[in-house]
Amino acid sequence: MSTSDIYLANGSEVQLFERAYRQRLPVMLTGPTGCGKTRLVEHMGLLLSRPVVTISCHDDLTSSDLVGRFMVTGGDVTWTDGPLTRAVKAGAICYLDEVVEARHDSLAVLHSLTDHRRTLYLDRAGEVVEAPETFMLVCSYNPAYRSSLKELKPSFRQRFVTLPMHYLPPDREAEVIVAEAGVALPTAQRLVQCACAIRTADEAFHFEPPSTRVLVTAAQLIAAGATELEAAEACVLAPLSSDGAISEGLREVAAAGLADADSQSPHR
Amino acid sequence: MSTSDIYLANGSEVQLFERAYRQRLPVMLTGPTGCGKTRLVEHMGLLLSRPVVTISCHDDLTSSDLVGRFMVTGGDVTWTDGPLTRAVKAGAICYLDEVVEARHDSLAVLHSLTDHRRTLYLDRAGEVVEAPETFMLVCSYNPAYRSSLKELKPSFRQRFVTLPMHYLPPDREAEVIVAEAGVALPTAQRLVQCACAIRTADEAFHFEPPSTRVLVTAAQLIAAGATELEAAEACVLAPLSSDGAISEGLREVAAAGLADADSQSPHR
Amino acid sequence: MSTSDIYLANGSEVQLFERAYRQRLPVMLTGPTGCGKTRLVEHMGLLLSRPVVTISCHDDLTSSDLVGRFMVTGGDVTWTDGPLTRAVKAGAICYLDEVVEARHDSLAVLHSLTDHRRTLYLDRAGEVVEAPETFMLVCSYNPAYRSSLKELKPSFRQRFVTLPMHYLPPDREAEVIVAEAGVALPTAQRLVQCACAIRTADEAFHFEPPSTRVLVTAAQLIAAGATELEAAEACVLAPLSSDGAISEGLREVAAAGLADADSQSPHR
Amino acid sequence: MSTSDIYLANGSEVQLFERAYRQRLPVMLTGPTGCGKTRLVEHMGLLLSRPVVTISCHDDLTSSDLVGRFMVTGGDVTWTDGPLTRAVKAGAICYLDEVVEARHDSLAVLHSLTDHRRTLYLDRAGEVVEAPETFMLVCSYNPAYRSSLKELKPSFRQRFVTLPMHYLPPDREAEVIVAEAGVALPTAQRLVQCACAIRTADEAFHFEPPSTRVLVTAAQLIAAGATELEAAEACVLAPLSSDGAISEGLREVAAAGLADADSQSPHR
Amino acid sequence: MSTSDIYLANGSEVQLFERAYRQRLPVMLTGPTGCGKTRLVEHMGLLLSRPVVTISCHDDLTSSDLVGRFMVTGGDVTWTDGPLTRAVKAGAICYLDEVVEARHDSLAVLHSLTDHRRTLYLDRAGEVVEAPETFMLVCSYNPAYRSSLKELKPSFRQRFVTLPMHYLPPDREAEVIVAEAGVALPTAQRLVQCACAIRTADEAFHFEPPSTRVLVTAAQLIAAGATELEAAEACVLAPLSSDGAISEGLREVAAAGLADADSQSPHR
Amino acid sequence: MSTSDIYLANGSEVQLFERAYRQRLPVMLTGPTGCGKTRLVEHMGLLLSRPVVTISCHDDLTSSDLVGRFMVTGGDVTWTDGPLTRAVKAGAICYLDEVVEARHDSLAVLHSLTDHRRTLYLDRAGEVVEAPETFMLVCSYNPAYRSSLKELKPSFRQRFVTLPMHYLPPDREAEVIVAEAGVALPTAQRLVQCACAIRTADEAFHFEPPSTRVLVTAAQLIAAGATELEAAEACVLAPLSSDGAISEGLREVAAAGLADADSQSPHR
Repeated sequence: MSTSDIYLANGSEVQLFERAYRQRLPVMLTGPTGCGKTRLVEHMGLLLSRPVVTISCHDDLTSSDLVGRFMVTGGDVTWTDGPLTRAVKAGAICYLDEVVEARHDSLAVLHSLTDHRRTLYLDRAGEVVEAPETFMLVCSYNPAYRSSLKELKPSFRQRFVTLPMHYLPPDREAEVIVAEAGVALPTAQRLVQCACAIRTADEAFHFEPPSTRVLVTAAQLIAAGATELEAAEACVLAPLSSDGAISEGLREVAAAGLADADSQSPHR
Repeated sequence: MSTSDIYLANGSEVQLFERAYRQRLPVMLTGPTGCGKTRLVEHMGLLLSRPVVTISCHDDLTSSDLVGRFMVTGGDVTWTDGPLTRAVKAGAICYLDEVVEARHDSLAVLHSLTDHRRTLYLDRAGEVVEAPETFMLVCSYNPAYRSSLKELKPSFRQRFVTLPMHYLPPDREAEVIVAEAGVALPTAQRLVQCACAIRTADEAFHFEPPSTRVLVTAAQLIAAGATELEAAEACVLAPLSSDGAISEGLREVAAAGLADADSQSPHR
Repeated sequence: MSTSDIYLANGSEVQLFERAYRQRLPVMLTGPTGCGKTRLVEHMGLLLSRPVVTISCHDDLTSSDLVGRFMVTGGDVTWTDGPLTRAVKAGAICYLDEVVEARHDSLAVLHSLTDHRRTLYLDRAGEVVEAPETFMLVCSYNPAYRSSLKELKPSFRQRFVTLPMHYLPPDREAEVIVAEAGVALPTAQRLVQCACAIRTADEAFHFEPPSTRVLVTAAQLIAAGATELEAAEACVLAPLSSDGAISEGLREVAAAGLADADSQSPHR
Repeated sequence: MSTSDIYLANGSEVQLFERAYRQRLPVMLTGPTGCGKTRLVEHMGLLLSRPVVTISCHDDLTSSDLVGRFMVTGGDVTWTDGPLTRAVKAGAICYLDEVVEARHDSLAVLHSLTDHRRTLYLDRAGEVVEAPETFMLVCSYNPAYRSSLKELKPSFRQRFVTLPMHYLPPDREAEVIVAEAGVALPTAQRLVQCACAIRTADEAFHFEPPSTRVLVTAAQLIAAGATELEAAEACVLAPLSSDGAISEGLREVAAAGLADADSQSPHR
Repeated sequence: MSTSDIYLANGSEVQLFERAYRQRLPVMLTGPTGCGKTRLVEHMGLLLSRPVVTISCHDDLTSSDLVGRFMVTGGDVTWTDGPLTRAVKAGAICYLDEVVEARHDSLAVLHSLTDHRRTLYLDRAGEVVEAPETFMLVCSYNPAYRSSLKELKPSFRQRFVTLPMHYLPPDREAEVIVAEAGVALPTAQRLVQCACAIRTADEAFHFEPPSTRVLVTAAQLIAAGATELEAAEACVLAPLSSDGAISEGLREVAAAGLADADSQSPHR
Repeated sequence: MSTSDIYLANGSEVQLFERAYRQRLPVMLTGPTGCGKTRLVEHMGLLLSRPVVTISCHDDLTSSDLVGRFMVTGGDVTWTDGPLTRAVKAGAICYLDEVVEARHDSLAVLHSLTDHRRTLYLDRAGEVVEAPETFMLVCSYNPAYRSSLKELKPSFRQRFVTLPMHYLPPDREAEVIVAEAGVALPTAQRLVQCACAIRTADEAFHFEPPSTRVLVTAAQLIAAGATELEAAEACVLAPLSSDGAISEGLREVAAAGLADADSQSPHR
């Protein structure tokens, strides 16, 4: 029923993911924002009948946030498993989104889970958890978004089977938009055309190009009564830049995509 | 009764906001300080009959400040919801003012609320809160105020329907001033003229231009007996710069706006 | 009885302060160290019959230091109001001295007190305190002392009615010195002359010029038996610089001010 | 039974390790990622019949994480040994992986264990633990991965017998791959050839070259049905770089290694 | 009996200190290391019959370290005064040595003690302590030792009567050495001569010149049997520099001072 | 019985140390790693019949780690002395190894112990500990290892009698190696020759030269069956550099030292 049932494969990523799962190897998904990394993981969870535990990584994510901590209850101290530990014990797929953002101690705790040991050492709790066969670790990161301060160490990257993800081809992307937002196909096609124009121009502008997710959002706004131009402005162009001159340039690029969009009435 | 009942729309922001609300999409408001972002949110709260929970973001705002924390009471530890969690549970509009100031862990906690999941994961409490249909997340930030240290990540910006806000046109701005401070219209018009002159000169000076809020404050001072020049000095010019030479330049620009202001008596 | 009863106004600051108070607007005092900012606030407290709560801001001042915190007593946890909360509840004048030094979370907590809401949100205590009519927030900062690391954000500065403060004219300054230290008028005049000479030369030296407070201190030393030159050395010159060459230059500048000071005997 | 039973020595590292053990000297293993440092330690543990306690070092590893800390239980405070203390008391081999990542206080705590004292001082617990004869400290680090921020101090490096590790010669490496992943020898040979080509080109590219571990992973993927090219892409090339141009160059280098790989069917 | 009974004044510092005390003004002592700042404070304590509370300032000195903190005892929380609070309550002389090292919150807490308020606000304890007449605050810092990271703010320096301190003239310095270490006068004179030579050369070398304290230490070593050259090497030269070339230069400078020192036998 | 019984003096350090002890003066040992600083302290402990308390300083060493802290036991809080306090109370020799690494608050706490006061102020415990006559403070640091971030302040260095330490002359060094590792004298001589060659070349390479400790370790490896070349590689050369070209250069320098070493059989 939910939109996450739909996953349109773009290459051999589903098969390779499944092979890594069967060999109990961890997977690293790379690719631009919104190209479907999270969707792939959710899709594989359904396909492999495993629950997915998602953890959004960030600057202040410590190893304690992952594995658990001692907490005071009624004067006593009891250990509470963190989401990673819960995922290991449940034999779930544990998905660390934007893993490059996490602090280094969080990454070090993953080492013993990503090699032949497949074991989580809870040093503070004095517990050793061997991962069941069905446990799988999946990480994602977006190499195009280069933060000067943070980079995954090569030795860490080499611990994973790496699956590079890309945008869907235009036809498939338009299908996704129709399926998720309920707009007419020509509207979806014009939004994709607009996004492709910007993605191509991106080399020059060095922005994070518009994602499929952004096009779905724009289509939802159109479905709610906005014109295609309003929706493209609010969802595709405005998040890219707030520099007047650049926005103007992007608007022209996008206009070429939407073309006669304004003469169209919104679809529901 | 309160001044927040008044909201004069400047474009299609009210309609687009409502459409985003109906499609359960999060909204990002951008624009200069005091152009009416907070007022728009309060106005939409009344229009959509939803309470508004406002959170002023800052450097030290952690995810715990947003979602809640465990607190010790009588030797025991109980979870206390933070304002974001309270807003999600109440199906309120949660407004994160100047979201760019918050720490990264605060932003990561928003991810699952801004995509198709619309869910808040309280990892520490071990609770999962699905947002009701009426919950809406609204953020604001001022792209003109560029802090070299902090920038919203493109992938974060793409999670929102972006509504760029601007100053009101002079006539509407003067109306607002009259309504809020109770001064005579010509006084309000001169204050607006003075602000417009500085806003135009701003390209050269690179200051944060004077906001509508600042003009209302000046008008309130005039209503309390200050001369127009005194009020413009204290509320419009003095906050802009403390560099003597620049202040002098601004004073001339402003003087052109206020023109024969000094010959006027203050109004009540 | 105390010296804080004396306040000699230098311009319209007393009237503007009172008008801001009547309109319930927050005030920002700017100006060099020791030009009378703290004295003005104390004077206005007496004039408006409001208690003054002074908070010296610094690097480590957190919002908890301002609004309060939970504290453990006998195993239980009780909330203790901070000085800002106490000032709001008491309808006092809350004076944040050198506000630019405070941490950003301390400033964010002031937002809702400085706009039409006039409300303090104690998120951690789950309490909302509406400021009574008599509550007033006053901040001060010295724009001449430029710390490269810290600057008030323009949007913060625009929340206040700004009253720039200056040194008293020489005659008035000498009167203050006589009143506070009990020295003879000629001594006070020579000290002022000495300070003025340095203040004028300050453009070249880029030091913080000597304040009125410093001259009062020198006069008190003279009243206790020091020679004028000794007192000027210890209170006016020595704090300015410890670089030999510069001190020499300052000494000459000061000597011109004190002139035949040494031939004078100290006064009581 | 487990893969860690297999260790193919590459030089005299086994003998030197054993001699250091007999003389109760600490050992430092250096060399590129995945060249077998961890395997050597596990192998020596079996050979010397000592348990191995592995600690993955990272940025936030404190001395308390190593030696232990006081913990509150039932209102009381009891000391809990950390993994280093447990290893010392058990006379185990304590292996600090990537020791350069640890914080300095963690390294200082090792001093008294690495000289003639062979003693661990638990200052906070007020306990002094003399290491039994069988205790051995082993550290590893990868000097090729130069972090500009961190470097082992020369005086620290001089506390260890240093054993530089290298990749296995191609024949032995192919044997390891066959033994661990169960692929046919020619497949293993082609993977090794591919890795050698990149390792040779590495001088120009300055990447962390592909490790034996990475080749085993690729072989496991092949054993699970992936083509050799797919496996080499996902395990060898993709982790090296996400820069398009560089990846292309690497792909050509690798293709020379895999040669007619694509015409081969995968082996099990 | 103790060496701190001896204080040989170098100028009018004793009188000015006493005048500041009588007028209840805080004092700032400046000057090179070991020129007698601490001795002056101890001497004044005896002279004015006030106890001296000395606090060595450093990087991590917080305001809580100065004013006190809440501490848990038997489940309850009780406030414990810090050394500054104890000094204020006792009407003692509180001496903050090397005040420039302290953290900014420590300095902010001093503001209200250094102006006409002479009051210590214990915000956390909710207590206000008015200083008795006999309380005096004395700070010291060494302006020659320029740390690029830390500088006293001009507005802070202006809160004090500043007394610049210098080395004693050679004759007096030799007397102090004889009195404190019990060596013969010619030995003391040669040590002073040696120090003076280095102090003069200091302009070129930019080191912290040798203090009187260092000469006393050298004399004590001589009194214990060391030769004058050994003592001068260990106490005067070695602490100045560990750069070979520079040490050589210093040694020549010092040799000129000690001259025929080696032919002398040590004295007791 | 233990190797620490052996100390071969290199100059007058033993006598000067003893004289400082008799005059109750603190001592600072400087010199390259492994030249015998720790050994001298242990030797003096035996000679003066005082226990030695050694503290390895590091980045995170706080004053609390030195003097002690309050700890919760059974709901109550009790003070626990740190190693410095224990040493002071016991009248021991307290040895702070690599004192330059410690945090500044740790150094400030030493001030009152290093001047005529010889007193430890436990501000938090409210206790004042006067050092007994037998207490002695000894610090060490290696001036050749220049960390750009940390430097002992000149005023701190001047508080100590400084004893510069050097490598032993070749003959004595070889004797130490024979005594400690049980190898034949010619082997020890070749190791010393090898070290001297590198120490001489060090001016060009700027490495931390090999210490006596390193030569003893190499000799121990030889005693356990390693060849002289293997031992020199693992203990002398490998810790110096991991840069291929430089290692090659060092190897040649070392080879000149070991000369016909390979034709020798290991000795026991």
